[in-house]
Parts: sequence; C-alpha cells; structure tokens
Amino acid sequence: MSQLIRDGQWPMGTRIPSEPELVELFGVGRNTIREAVRALEHAGLLAPRRGDGTYVCGRNPLAGAISRCTPDPEITDLITTRRALESEAAALAAQHADADTVTGLKALLADTVAALDAGDVERYALLDLEFHSAVVTASRNPLLIELYDGIGEVMRRNHRDLADATSGTGHPRGHHDVVEAIADADPARARDAVHRYLETALDVTARDAAR
Amino acid sequence: MSQLIRDGQWPMGTRIPSEPELVELFGVGRNTIREAVRALEHAGLLAPRRGDGTYVCGRNPLAGAISRCTPDPEITDLITTRRALESEAAALAAQHADADTVTGLKALLADTVAALDAGDVERYALLDLEFHSAVVTASRNPLLIELYDGIGEVMRRNHRDLADATSGTGHPRGHHDVVEAIADADPARARDAVHRYLETALDVTARDAAR
Repeated sequence: MSQLIRDGQWPMGTRIPSEPELVELFGVGRNTIREAVRALEHAGLLAPRRGDGTYVCGRNPLAGAISRCTPDPEITDLITTRRALESEAAALAAQHADADTVTGLKALLADTVAALDAGDVERYALLDLEFHSAVVTASRNPLLIELYDGIGEVMRRNHRDLADATSGTGHPRGHHDVVEAIADADPARARDAVHRYLETALDVTARDAAR
Repeated sequence: MSQLIRDGQWPMGTRIPSEPELVELFGVGRNTIREAVRALEHAGLLAPRRGDGTYVCGRNPLAGAISRCTPDPEITDLITTRRALESEAAALAAQHADADTVTGLKALLADTVAALDAGDVERYALLDLEFHSAVVTASRNPLLIELYDGIGEVMRRNHRDLADATSGTGHPRGHHDVVEAIADADPARARDAVHRYLETALDVTARDAAR
C-alpha cells in the first residue's frame, strides 16, 4: 500500500478500498491488512473519516514524522531548511551529473520558461516543482532526496500558496545559473546560485509578513 | 511515553514497564496504552522482544522514518546531509545568536579542547557532539534542529565509530572558526567554516574506503 501511495497510484485524497477489498487485492489476511492500515495511519499517510472509509492524506512518511515533531512550522524555517538541502544537492549535482542529466535539466527548464511565456501558470508551477526535484535527484544522495521530498510536502500542506509562489522565485535567471554551474561541474557556484534565488524567496516572505 | 524517550528518562536500551504497570503509571485504559505502544513501535522508538518485554530502540521519531525510507544509508550521504543542515544552521546562528549564546558556545568549545588535551577521549567525544548540537540549536529553526538530531541518530545507529570519529574532525581550528564567525555575526563565513571541517571528514572517509 505504501508503494501505491509513493508511486502516486493512490493520489492524495483517494478513498482506499474497504477492508474486504484490500484482503482480496493483496491476498493476505484481515489482521495483516488491519495492521498495515494502522501503520500507515501512524505514519501520517492515511486518515480514517468516521463512517466514510479511509483516505490518503500524505505521500511521504518523513513528512508525517516532521509534522508530528514540529507541528505548524514557520514558513521562513521551511524555506531555510529547503535552502540547506537544495544548495547542497546542487553542489553534489555539479560533482556527479553526467551529460544526459544536464541535457534533461536544460530541457525541463526550457519547458518551464515556455509555460511561463505562454501564460499557463498551472503548467508552469508544476514544471517548476519538477525542475527543483530534478536538481535534487541529480545529487544522487537518496537521503537528501527523501528529506527534500518530505519538506516539500510539509510546505505544500501548511502553506499551499506560498509554496507555489516561492517555487518560482527568481525565475528564470536564478534557475539558469544553477543549471550552468552544474553543467560546468562547479559545486561552489551551484551552491551560490541556489542561495541567491532562495534569498529572494525569503525577502518576499519577510515583505509579506511586514504588511 | 514519547516525551520520556525524547527527554532521555527512558534511554536507549531501557525495557519499558509492563502493560499493567503502564496503565497504573499513566492512569489511562489498557487499550490506550496498547495503541500508544504500537504507535511508538511504528515510529521506530520501541521494539518488542519475544517473551522479554518491549525496549527503547530509538529516540527521535524522524530517525525511524528516515531509516524506513532509506535503509542502510552510505556514510558519505550522511555526511553531506549533515553538511547541508549544519552549514545552514551555522549561518542562521550568525544571524540570530545573542551574547549569551556566543558565551555558551565558547565555554563548550573550551571544555571540549580541555578534554582533548587531558586525553579524556570519551568526555571529548561527548562534548564535541554537544558542541555541534549547540551550534544547530543556535539557528533557532526548530525544523532544522529536529532533522539534524534525526540524522545524527541514524549516523550513530549505522556507523557508530565513524560518527564519533568524524564529529571531531578538523578540531579544534575549524570549530573555533565557526564560533568566531557566529560571534562576528558573519553568516557566509560561518557557512564556509562548516564546509571546511566537513570537507576534511569526507576526505577521511574516502581515504578509509580506498584502503
């Protein structure tokens, strides 16, 4: 079940099948299913709604653990944590990325810019998130990738609008700088480029808070 | 119960009281206790041993989630993740630390150096970990503090010796540089100082791996 949730085959908001259906689907006993559902509830991936079945409410188990440890995180704390992970990831990507990865990042960035130019904001926001994830994936550090995904989910859960807004901050200049630094295998410059565009996100947040 | 574990009142390896004792201790029903124990088992803080009660096997619920998401992490991935969090934390500490915090960091570092000079390796290792945690705490970012604690626990679980060894790498020059940068309220220098001493840790790891 956790795999179906991670893979997005059961997206957020899905009502999962009933207990008898799950027994049939997975070919295991009722107790096993009950225990698995309870574990996923504890992990913050599933939530029961009284008299209305059980729903997918999260995708990344780390996000659930983070939410339990630090409920209601401040937006600036989320952004600086994202800065920590994303700048290190960009530096590692500059060390490890091969030609294919660089080509992929450039293509993704070009699509993002095209969506922005065409005024398709929804598609732009989606591609932009995908771009940032692709940079982190290029770090080849599974732990960093997992943490970044978890923080992203917490950010979207708590600050939906701002998460979408900041994901595009400093675009497109800042994003080009990151990709160029990765292409040039220059970790220090990749790190700095991330710092620069997230500094802008922090400024925007501070300005909004001061209003 | 999770609070007793977090606070260290039930340290790692403790056998927790039996179910009837817990019912008495917390003044709640048997089902509530059973559910709470199960939740802590899922969170990776408690583990049952057949015929021998239930033991504390972790302190930070994030560490449990991290271990489930990325079992068996590479030591270099742990170190670069630590670098991500600790360098950002040092930069934030340089922004936020007041005079008392700086005095505390200096005192802690002096104690660490004294333990090293006296050849008390055990006390040195303990104080050194405390020093790094104090830097991260000075960031005043609860999310970063929690993640750092979680990564630290995963590191000690998986690479006990290396975790202790790398915690002292580059000491004492690198640590002084961090404290001085925090005292001078210079985020960029604080960040660089952390990068420098963890670069040494990565070199040591690469050298050991090449042997």
